[in-house]
Amino acid sequence: MQKNISIVLLSGGMDSTVCTAIAHAQSEEVAALHVNYGQRTQARELQAFHDVCNYYSITKRLIVDISHLAAIGGSSLTDSTITIEPANLDRKDIPTSYVPFRNANILAIATSWAEVIHANKLYIGAVQDDSSGYPDCREEFFQAFQNVINTGTKPDTHISIETPIIHFDKSQIVQKGLALQAPFQLSWSCYKSEDVACGNCDSCALRLRGFQQAGATDPIPYQQ
Amino acid sequence: MQKNISIVLLSGGMDSTVCTAIAHAQSEEVAALHVNYGQRTQARELQAFHDVCNYYSITKRLIVDISHLAAIGGSSLTDSTITIEPANLDRKDIPTSYVPFRNANILAIATSWAEVIHANKLYIGAVQDDSSGYPDCREEFFQAFQNVINTGTKPDTHISIETPIIHFDKSQIVQKGLALQAPFQLSWSCYKSEDVACGNCDSCALRLRGFQQAGATDPIPYQQ
Repeated sequence: MQKNISIVLLSGGMDSTVCTAIAHAQSEEVAALHVNYGQRTQARELQAFHDVCNYYSITKRLIVDISHLAAIGGSSLTDSTITIEPANLDRKDIPTSYVPFRNANILAIATSWAEVIHANKLYIGAVQDDSSGYPDCREEFFQAFQNVINTGTKPDTHISIETPIIHFDKSQIVQKGLALQAPFQLSWSCYKSEDVACGNCDSCALRLRGFQQAGATDPIPYQQ
Repeated sequence: MQKNISIVLLSGGMDSTVCTAIAHAQSEEVAALHVNYGQRTQARELQAFHDVCNYYSITKRLIVDISHLAAIGGSSLTDSTITIEPANLDRKDIPTSYVPFRNANILAIATSWAEVIHANKLYIGAVQDDSSGYPDCREEFFQAFQNVINTGTKPDTHISIETPIIHFDKSQIVQKGLALQAPFQLSWSCYKSEDVACGNCDSCALRLRGFQQAGATDPIPYQQ
């Protein structure tokens, strides 16, 4: 009998690390997908991805580069011609979320991989309330994508999208991670720095507040 | 008033060339998306893409490489480890369609681009009856993906998927193209050859039969 495999979308940040902990607790085997956007802290996030995979003994790993999508978005903001240039990685005002329809692109890749390795669940650590209104983080979007999977894959393929933290706030995510002994010390959330987290960017601030509200201490070091 | 822009998914083959002719007839401006898979005749197809774009004076062009998806599929057939190797381009038994969930990946990229350039239609020359049962060529799949676009894009984004030849057979596609003066002479369908079409591969055979049934002559040269 073949193992039930779950694929987790693992950026290496806090949310996806906790989502990996949940997938690990609920699955016979976990495979992990990481997506590069050409983001500034790409190397550090990739290290976090591998560290978390090692922690959970995840051997099936797939790393996909979709920096062309970042380039679509980036060039469009400044230039109506369609020359594809590398994204400007030093712009502070572009979050990774600036790629329109990003989650559909990632879920499409994950579904292709799931069909090939016979995975039957896709875990994604999307959070609806923290999503600043991004439409592709809402439950309604994932339900619609579930229907695309159902109609667009082979009849004997059965893949379900799992969004276990979609209605959590950051402190609930921290609490869930602590309960499951998620390796927060290996995760990386800072958008600015790759060695010691800055503590000031939006991502650091949200993370620190989540730990504070949960009455816990973040194990990673921060700049003083 | 901004122009209404349509994006056409243009591989450079016969079906997508006729689909481009239809989009051109129905739109104020057409933009064209081409996807590389690492397929054997990639360079020839890209040339066909540019030739058809030039014919219709399409200046907004986007070329995206998704050969990592081909690699997912390729490696999975022979190897359960997830090392990503280049696809073996000399395997005759792998059609470009061997990438599971391919059309979802392409539509996701097209939708990202459409949001950025404010296109409101995506034309895709999918043909349900010729699709050998591929689930992501069926009308039901495109309807489901339409709902993903509706739920996963910004409230002021309105993008509709257009599948004008989905219920055509090859002879009807030829007839439609002739009626619209589609540039068949610039399109490329052969999977094997990049200079003179072989006339023997599945794609050539389907194309030639379509012209024969339509009572017309294919303008491209074939090997004797």
